This record gives sequence, C-alpha cells and structure tokens, in this order.
Amino acid sequence: MPTRLLDGIDSPADLKALSLDELERLAQEVRDVIISVIVERGGHLASNLGVVELTMALHRVFDSPTDSLVWDTTNQMYTHKIITGRRDEFDSIRLEGGLSGFGEPQESPHDTLSAGHAGTGLSIALGLAAGAANRQQDSWTVAIVGDGAMTSGSSFEAINNIAHLNPERFLVVLNDNGMSISENIGFLTNWRKRVITHPEFTAMLDRMRSLSQKTPTGELLYRIVKRFNTGLAGLIIPTMFWKEMGFEYLGPVDGHDLKQLELTLRQARNPTGSVPLVHVVTHKGHGYEPAESNPVQFHQPSSPLGSGSGAPTYSSVVAQTLTRIMREDSSVVGISAAMLEGTGLAEVQEEFPTRIFDVGIAEQHAVSMAAGMAAGGLSPFVSIYSTFLQRAFDQIAHDICLQNLPVTLIADRAGIVGEDGKTHHGAFDISYLRCLPNTVIAAPMDENELQHLVYTAYRHDAPFAIRIPRGAGTGAPLDSEPRELPIGRGYVLEQGTDVVLVAVGKPVQAAVEAARMLADEGISCGIVNPLFIKPLDIELLLGQARLTRRVVTIEENVLAGGFGSAVLEAFADAGLSDVSVHRVGMPDAFIEHGTAADQRHRLQLDAAGIAEQIRGVLLAAATESPA
Amino acid sequence: MPTRLLDGIDSPADLKALSLDELERLAQEVRDVIISVIVERGGHLASNLGVVELTMALHRVFDSPTDSLVWDTTNQMYTHKIITGRRDEFDSIRLEGGLSGFGEPQESPHDTLSAGHAGTGLSIALGLAAGAANRQQDSWTVAIVGDGAMTSGSSFEAINNIAHLNPERFLVVLNDNGMSISENIGFLTNWRKRVITHPEFTAMLDRMRSLSQKTPTGELLYRIVKRFNTGLAGLIIPTMFWKEMGFEYLGPVDGHDLKQLELTLRQARNPTGSVPLVHVVTHKGHGYEPAESNPVQFHQPSSPLGSGSGAPTYSSVVAQTLTRIMREDSSVVGISAAMLEGTGLAEVQEEFPTRIFDVGIAEQHAVSMAAGMAAGGLSPFVSIYSTFLQRAFDQIAHDICLQNLPVTLIADRAGIVGEDGKTHHGAFDISYLRCLPNTVIAAPMDENELQHLVYTAYRHDAPFAIRIPRGAGTGAPLDSEPRELPIGRGYVLEQGTDVVLVAVGKPVQAAVEAARMLADEGISCGIVNPLFIKPLDIELLLGQARLTRRVVTIEENVLAGGFGSAVLEAFADAGLSDVSVHRVGMPDAFIEHGTAADQRHRLQLDAAGIAEQIRGVLLAAATESPA
Repeated sequence: MPTRLLDGIDSPADLKALSLDELERLAQEVRDVIISVIVERGGHLASNLGVVELTMALHRVFDSPTDSLVWDTTNQMYTHKIITGRRDEFDSIRLEGGLSGFGEPQESPHDTLSAGHAGTGLSIALGLAAGAANRQQDSWTVAIVGDGAMTSGSSFEAINNIAHLNPERFLVVLNDNGMSISENIGFLTNWRKRVITHPEFTAMLDRMRSLSQKTPTGELLYRIVKRFNTGLAGLIIPTMFWKEMGFEYLGPVDGHDLKQLELTLRQARNPTGSVPLVHVVTHKGHGYEPAESNPVQFHQPSSPLGSGSGAPTYSSVVAQTLTRIMREDSSVVGISAAMLEGTGLAEVQEEFPTRIFDVGIAEQHAVSMAAGMAAGGLSPFVSIYSTFLQRAFDQIAHDICLQNLPVTLIADRAGIVGEDGKTHHGAFDISYLRCLPNTVIAAPMDENELQHLVYTAYRHDAPFAIRIPRGAGTGAPLDSEPRELPIGRGYVLEQGTDVVLVAVGKPVQAAVEAARMLADEGISCGIVNPLFIKPLDIELLLGQARLTRRVVTIEENVLAGGFGSAVLEAFADAGLSDVSVHRVGMPDAFIEHGTAADQRHRLQLDAAGIAEQIRGVLLAAATESPA
Repeated sequence: MPTRLLDGIDSPADLKALSLDELERLAQEVRDVIISVIVERGGHLASNLGVVELTMALHRVFDSPTDSLVWDTTNQMYTHKIITGRRDEFDSIRLEGGLSGFGEPQESPHDTLSAGHAGTGLSIALGLAAGAANRQQDSWTVAIVGDGAMTSGSSFEAINNIAHLNPERFLVVLNDNGMSISENIGFLTNWRKRVITHPEFTAMLDRMRSLSQKTPTGELLYRIVKRFNTGLAGLIIPTMFWKEMGFEYLGPVDGHDLKQLELTLRQARNPTGSVPLVHVVTHKGHGYEPAESNPVQFHQPSSPLGSGSGAPTYSSVVAQTLTRIMREDSSVVGISAAMLEGTGLAEVQEEFPTRIFDVGIAEQHAVSMAAGMAAGGLSPFVSIYSTFLQRAFDQIAHDICLQNLPVTLIADRAGIVGEDGKTHHGAFDISYLRCLPNTVIAAPMDENELQHLVYTAYRHDAPFAIRIPRGAGTGAPLDSEPRELPIGRGYVLEQGTDVVLVAVGKPVQAAVEAARMLADEGISCGIVNPLFIKPLDIELLLGQARLTRRVVTIEENVLAGGFGSAVLEAFADAGLSDVSVHRVGMPDAFIEHGTAADQRHRLQLDAAGIAEQIRGVLLAAATESPA
C-alpha cells in the first residue's frame, strides 16, 4: 500500500473507490504537490489551490474523457493534470519539453483544448456538445468558468446562445472565487458580495462552524443547514436572475466541501428542461496561507528563473512616466482589463484612484471606452498584454483608427513571453496593427526610449501604439525629463560596411551583441534602430541599404506581415532592387513553453542565433558572387 | 409659412416649439422623406422607420450637441440627420460625396461617431460621459442601443462596467424592435415575447385601442392605462433583471407614441442613484407596409445602382456548394452571426434547419463554438462579412489556428463594398489572417473556382479561410461537380513578356481586362492566378518573375501586410533580387462611401486604373534603363 494515496491515482477512475475521508486526505496531498512545485517554479498558484476539491468532485461525478470537462482559460488544471495520469511529470510543468501550464490535448485525452485566453470555454463546450449530439452520444459536456472570465463579452455571447439552444447533458459550473486576475468588476461581484455578506448567511455559517468544532454531528448539521441557503431572502434574486437567463440555478455550494460538491453535481444531472448552472464558491489560495491572504500576488508568482537584472521592468517605466504626465494634465487617464498589476497601472492607481480604470476581462470595452474618452477630450492610455489586445482588434480598427482618435495603446508582453507558452506570446501585434490606417507604431530599445515614446504618444493627436517586451529593461539610465521624439524618425547606432542590421524593440540589444561577436571575426555590421514601425524612416533605411546592399531585419513578431515585411514594402515602393533582405523573427508556428532565454535560443533570436543567421547571409552572398 | 413643417426644422431646437399634433405630422413628413429616398436608393429602411418618433422625442428632451446622443451602429440616424440641419442633402445619402449612411462627425456636431459595427455604442458613450465629467460639464450622455446589438459581447462588457462606475447623467435607451439583422437570439428575445404576448398586456391594448377609435378621450385612456404596464405580473422579472444588473428600469414604452416617449425620457432624468434604462418597443418599418411585413428584406434593400449581371452572387454559390456537401455528410454545419440572409446561409437553413446556427451579433462566440464543434468531430463553415470577422480575430488565432482545428471561415464582402463605406470594407482580412500559423487562405477569381475551394476546404483537415467579394460573380459556368484543388497551387492564365500581373480574387478579372487594353498598345502582360494567398505557390511566382523581372501584384486589401507583401516576402526569402515588384491594392486610408464602381475607379483598382499603373511601372523602368 502506497504511503501517499496519490501514488495510487493513475486515472480519475481510481478516485471513485475512495471514501470521503480518503478524498480529503488526497486533496491535501494534491495541494502539497502543487505548492511545492509552483512556489519554486512559478505558475498559477492561488487559482489552482482554489479548485482542488472541485476538480476531484467533477472527476467523481463525470467520466472523463467520455464526458468532456472544459476549463475556461485552462490555467486551473493542475489538480486535473495530477489525477489524470500526469502526477509523476508534474514537476516538469512550464519547463521546456515538460507539461504545459495550460490544458494540452497532446498531453492527455482528458484535456479538451489548450486555451489561455479567458472567456472561450463556454463556446468551446457548446461546440463539443453539438458534436456529441451529432454522434448521438449520451455523454456530458461540462464547462467550468471563473467569475472573472464570466465578465468577458465572449462568455456572455455563449451564455445567450446556450440558453437559446438549450442543449441536453450540458452543465455550467461557475467557479466563483470573487476575483479575476486583479479586481473583478460588475454584477457578479456585487451579487457575490451580497451572498457572502448577507447577515443571515454569515451568522449561520459562523454558528455552524463553532458547533462543528465542538461535536462531530455539528459538522453534519452545518452542512445540512447550508442546503437551505437558496431559501434565504437575499438569494432569491440570483436564482431568478439565472432562471431569467434560461438556466436552472443550483447553489451556492462551498467549493471546498467535497461531499456537498458531489451531491450538487449529481443533482445537476437530473433533467429539468433547462441547462443546469452550479454556483461554486471557492477561495483562491485555499490551504496555503500566503496565497490566501494575497491572492493577487500569488495569481502567478514570477519564475525565479527569469531575469534578475535589477533594472526596472518596461511596464513600470510606462507607469512612472504616465504618473509624471498625469500630475501635469488632469485629462490623462489609464485603462486596463484585469491586468492592473501586470501592466504597472496599479501603482499609478495609488496616486490617481479615480483616473485608472480596470474594466475586468473586457478588452473590447476597454478600447471602445478609450475611444469615447478621447472623443470626449480625455487622453487615454490603454495598457493590455499584446496577446489579449488581439481580443480588441476590431475596436482598435473601428473605434480608434477609423475615427482617428488620440488613444495610446501599450501592447505589453509583446514578443516572446516564456513559461506561459503558445497562448501568451505577443507574436502578432506588429502585423495586425500595421495594416490599420492612421496608426503610429513604435518600439523602444530600452527603458529610456520608452519614457520618451510614452511622452511622444501623449503629445500626438492620433492613434499611437507602443509595443514593449515582458520583463526587465536593459538598465539604461533614464533622462531626467521625458521628451517628445520626432514621429517616424530612427537613427544609426553603429556604422558598418558588410551588412546593416535593422532591429526594432528589444532585439536591438541582441543585435548589438551579435555585431560585437561578428566584429571579432572581421565582419563589420551597421546597426539601425528605426524606433518606429509605422511610419518607417524610409530615407534612413534606403540610405543604409545602399551602403552595403545587405540588410538583416530583426524583430520579435511573426515574419508574415511583420516589421521586416514593412521594410520590404518600403524598398519595393522606392524601386530599390539589388539589395538582399534577410528577415529574422518569430516563425510561422506557435511557440511552446519554456524559459524566454531558451525560446530565443531555439529560434535564433538571441545574439548567438542572430550572429549565426548573419554568417549564413554573408556565406550565401559569397557563394553566389565570389568576389 | 412652409407647406411642410419639416421645412421649418433647421435644428433640434425647432422641434421644441411644436405641439403634439404638429410633431405627429412632422413624424409623417420625415417618414415620407426616408421612404421616398431609400426605397429608390437602398439603405437601412426598416430600422430607420422604426425610430422616427424615438429620435424626435430624444431631441426634444435632450439638447444635442451639448448632450451627446450615441446611436449604436449609427445606421439608424436618418431621422436624426433630417432634423439636425441635413434635410436638404438627405437625397445625397450613400452617394459619393453625399451624406454618409452612418453617423459622421465631419457632417455635423450632432453626430458623435461614425460607427458601423454593432455593440460599441455603450462603451463609446461611457467614455464620452467620463470626458464630460472631467470637464465638470452638466451634460447628459445618451446611448441608444438596439436589442440586436445588445446580444454582442462588447455591449455586455459595457453594461457591466456602466453598472460598476454608475456615471451621473447617463441614460441607456434600449430600442427593442424584436429583431436584429435577421433573427434575434437569446434572453432579450424571450423576454420581449413574454411582454408582448402576455394575455393581460395584449387584451388591455386591444380594449383600449377599440375604445380610442370610438371616442377621442379613449385615446387618452389608452395611454394612461399603458402607464400601468410595469405593474403587470409578467413584467416584474424584467424590472428586477435590470435592477439586478444595476440599472433603474423604465418601460416598456410604445416607441411610436411621442407623448409617452417624451414623458418617460423626462422621468429618466430624475436622479435615482442608478443609471436609468428606458425600454422602448418599436416596430421595424413602422408606417410603410411592405417594410413592416417583411423587415428582413427591407433591412437593407440592395441599391438599384449595383451590378445586375444576373450571375449568382458569391454568397449564394457558397450556399449551394455547402448544401451539396451537407447532403452527403451529416457532420457538416454552418454558422453565422445575424447574417444568414446576407451570407446565403438562410437558403441552406431551409433544407437543414437544425444544422445552420445563427448566434446573433456574436462573432466571437460563432468562431469559438466552431472550434469546439471541430474538436467534437463536426465540420463547421463559419460565414461572416470580412469587416465583422475582425471582431473574432483573437478567437481565430487562439481557438482555431492555435488548436489547428478544421474550421472553414468564409470572409464574405471582402474588399470594396460600396455604399456602406468606410466601416464596412473588407480591407484587412488578408493582413490579419496571413500572420496566423496553420492557416490556409484562398480567394477565387470566379464562382466556379469558389465551389471548388469550398469543397477543398471541406476536405482539408486544418483551418481554411476563403475570401469572397460582395455581389454577383462573373457568370462563369459551374462545373457539374465541385472538386478538390491542390492546396497552395496557382496557375498561369496568360503568358506575357513585358510584365507579369499576379492578381488574387476578384481583381483577376480586372487584370485580364487591363492586359487586353495594354495588348492593343503593344504591351505584353502575363497573368498569374495564385488562388492561394497562404501558402503561396512560390515556384510558380519565382518562375514567372524570372521571365520578365517585372511583377505587379493586384489585390483588394490594404497593401500593408497584404498579398503583395506576401509576394515580396517570398521573393526576399528566395534570394530573388533584381526583380521590380509594384503592388496594386487598397491604400493606407479608410475609403468613404460611394458605389463600388466609383470607389474602384478612384483607387485605380478597375481595369483602366490597373492599366494606368502598369504603364507607370513600364515608363519608370524605361526611364531608369533606356534600352
């Protein structure tokens, strides 16, 4: 007999033989594994600790993979991974070649999709249910959605359509932990507050809890009385609310009470003519005090393997510069979408609590509202991770660029992001922003350029996007005052005679290093920092291209439609021929997880890789025309 | 004294002096103007006839432009335009150089934005209100949103944030006409049905109506009793629903009863601590029998100025081919987002009512659900206009391409669209799809190629996008059976010696014509139809480029990151130099309304314009190197 119960759990079927006591022991063992690995490694700790019991209950009541469990966002699947045969590989999570930190169908048939953007789970689940119905298969489809993801418009669209189609054997589990990535917004929060703070509810819970500590039967009594929650006056409205939306509401259920969870999930399987929605109240970080008391910090503790240069992050330089500007101009405001901490706007909010807007997981609204603000005379800065800014592409095109309104977009985490992997790289923003008229797009090579660009965007009376990388800057000293830079003007960093490197944003540093390596080999590289992706400094680039007839463009974006593509367009439009252009960038593929350093190395986007690519270019040129 | 009251209405202020009787006469005059112009011209007839009285009441109760009226989607602003000083230009609407069919701040300070995509109005209004608050201005901001737009996720995100921020002097008007573009979906529809069909409600209305016809005081009685509507049992839930969402609900109000509308809007101005939401029930096509009885057809009657070639539209060829495939394979399904008629899927639905899904104005959900369907073994075709497909860019990237799922996207209305103008051109889809890994993108030159591409997409086991233009095909005869085409394979249409034209999609026809014109001048043009934008037929293109060293790419997409850009990338990657590439396509600007023919002419995208651009290329080449 194994000393750990967990060592006997090779698949969800093994859960079904356990007693309630054993399940509770198992929950603790799972929690121990998660804490020991993630506290060291980094990852979504608090949210995963919140769903240990919920995951186990789901796997007892449903039969994965015949039944489909669809976790919205899929960053809360650690327990699921551990009990679906991936226990022994769990310590490889988020490492190159190891388990993904998200769902991954390639790892296991128990994973339905590899999603990392919130608000897609309900739609995906509805599609899976349609597939099961088409196969006349009596399986269940269960969507587990956090209250944060529920505030995204895509979830609402799905809720609406689920109520309309009313599929059979379909269950929605609302995992209500009272908090999305930072602060939750909107009616669900108000509702939860009302439930949690309802005097009858809390008094009863307290009474029962103290009883249950004194006597074993008290525990049972406590649970029985909790069943009456739905009868409380304050809870009638939520029940009716979901009924109005077209669902059969069950709950709220204590998400850390295995027996209660299981009873309610089994009850949800009884047909009522409407799709059941089980409201589960969980606590982020449950069972790990540091995470329980500070779930925002423990949402995703940074990986200790990351950069520890001590330089400020790009995000914090945006925040500091914005703060300076906001002190001078009361019309400047900041907006983010459940990313105040990550984007640095949380520190700005401390000084300007009413001028920083967190709209929740609602990127579309963030961008359209910014357009309205600009039309109303404000000067809005919208800071959203590049990968999530995709969600607002239409709003950028239609509400900002078409109206030509002075909104500044900060595309944070642009380029390679590391451990979060393929759903989180900011791989496309140059391509999807560059095609839009009226747009200025810039990318700083260091944090000093960044502060000047933020100020330049503030002074510019039209759409302006700044893409910045994840993590720490270069340590470049900051000028004492941010200043306005000429739009569309780049500059030569180094003159060279064999080849000109045109690098934009973070890769400028790697290009400088690569040039040094090559200098030792007798190869002379010019280096240009165009600073602006749109409009391009065409005169500068043409002049440099004519010097060596060999240009290497370097960017952290996919090559298709990226910065190098813009350079090719400019050269073609200028009628420049007989110049070879080699483009270095992210490939036409989704990049798996690993450290950012490993990813850059593998993709030849670090200094050594760039140098190697330049050698290849020069070798090919030499082979073609031996001088 | 003018014979028409309307001739005395030069601004909204002039409305305020009118009596109720005069207002009702004016409403009829406005309706007459709209019908006479739009029945002939084409435009959004039914929806505009539905809001004549609502618009007038809003302008009596609020002071535009000090107060901001934000119409979601802005295609219902005809009455607004007529009574805000544009009466005499109204017959220029949707013509080149004339009034826009949408809101247009450049036309009038009464227009707050030029939007054409649904679901942005609430967010824009919230931003404008923040601007007014910052200026400490006591003005009102009013958002008027249709029930169709209310089903879009972006509206929900805004509703959530409005409830959270609870701005002062902010009003939401829900214009409930029971129908978005085709069929409305979701809880609002159910709710409306319950209100409208409630026995007490309808019985009372009937009683009152017959009374009011017999006696003049009956009319008044009728209106008074309607005030009690909100007390009816069936209406308690909607009231509570909106209260739960955080709003002060007023209504429902008859949207064609000027007095009632005005009373309710004035009542909404009284502070209650919550944002007021006025629920107005309107009837599409009100006052014009053909449009009332068939509002879908009269949503936007086609312009008689359009192509009348008699050839089937591209949309209908998709529908016919899909129908054939669906007869053979029960796993094939079709999805659209409130565009069943426009995309041709309505005809498919007649044969397969359960396999065509209209999700409402919810493009994000449409695409994610399709991903789930594909993961569940179905073969989904999603047909959405290119301009609206932008709304689902993140879902295409994250749920389809990243998961590499076999979903076919039909980007309908790609390229120039004509009268709907700048918000509706499909100008960006090549750029925003081409950057995504795992994607195949194709564009047929005629409807026969289209049927083969639809079949090829069906056979392909990964993401596949087909872009098709608005309107009729070329009249090309259809092969009796659709067949599978080799992916990424193009072909030479004509060999030539001076220059090679590489045109993709609809512009192939114009290229052929241009080549004929130039042949008369002794210029020999090769013509290549690559058929696929991704992957490109690189060998074919390289071979042709080497023949003449002069390539002209032709597309109906912006040039930045477009098809020509892909050709430049391929040539650079192949190390091809000394080949000049001239790119013909849509400029880096938003294209104003007009007929599609005029737009193509102005942009040199018709045969004459393409020929002229080719002459320019050859002239420049001759000047550089006089042979």
